Amino acid sequence: MEKVNLNQKFTLFTECWSPKIVGDLNDSYVKVAKFKGEFTWHKHDSEDEFFYVVNGSVTIQLRDKDVVLNPGEFLIVPKGIEHCPKADEEAHIMLLEPKSTLNTGDVVNEKTVAELEWI
Amino acid sequence: MEKVNLNQKFTLFTECWSPKIVGDLNDSYVKVAKFKGEFTWHKHDSEDEFFYVVNGSVTIQLRDKDVVLNPGEFLIVPKGIEHCPKADEEAHIMLLEPKSTLNTGDVVNEKTVAELEWI
Repeated sequence: MEKVNLNQKFTLFTECWSPKIVGDLNDSYVKVAKFKGEFTWHKHDSEDEFFYVVNGSVTIQLRDKDVVLNPGEFLIVPKGIEHCPKADEEAHIMLLEPKSTLNTGDVVNEKTVAELEWI
Repeated sequence: MEKVNLNQKFTLFTECWSPKIVGDLNDSYVKVAKFKGEFTWHKHDSEDEFFYVVNGSVTIQLRDKDVVLNPGEFLIVPKGIEHCPKADEEAHIMLLEPKSTLNTGDVVNEKTVAELEWI
């Protein structure tokens, strides 16, 4: 049982839109990811998703509004809600999601990561 | 669906060891709490518990070691593991726990908070 330092974890990888697992609790994973550019519009039919910004700024685009998240802020996107994250500059994120969650939800494309890596 | 700014939430209450709900995802609550002094040794028989430090420093005392958490660091205490948080100075924490979690786990004492408040 070791603590996790998020900024230390962000030194271990460079790629964007590729969540890494950093913790495991109950039926969920804690993940970290780097965002830069625009992701893919998608939804998760049965999982709520937690986005917490550690460094930088992320816009969670929803169909009816944009939510801009800065460090120390989070948004929970409820199941079934279409969303598309974007970040003009590289941003560092902590995610919390059920273990069953696929990063691109109901969409499968070149951004889909089927096998998540622990770091 | 609104974002949550953790530091803004910490302005809304002063009491320590009294977690407040700030978010709801899947079967869990996201909570914030202020810690100062020493809590109570306890365990949660069926829930893993996530402690993330936002401000200050927290020591999670375990039976075999102490884990010191600074801002940007988290520890997941697995179900069944006895622990006792303490903080020499006031510290601000984000917690993630199943909705069924009682703050004092298997112990009921004056620190037990049976009805959690949303803020």
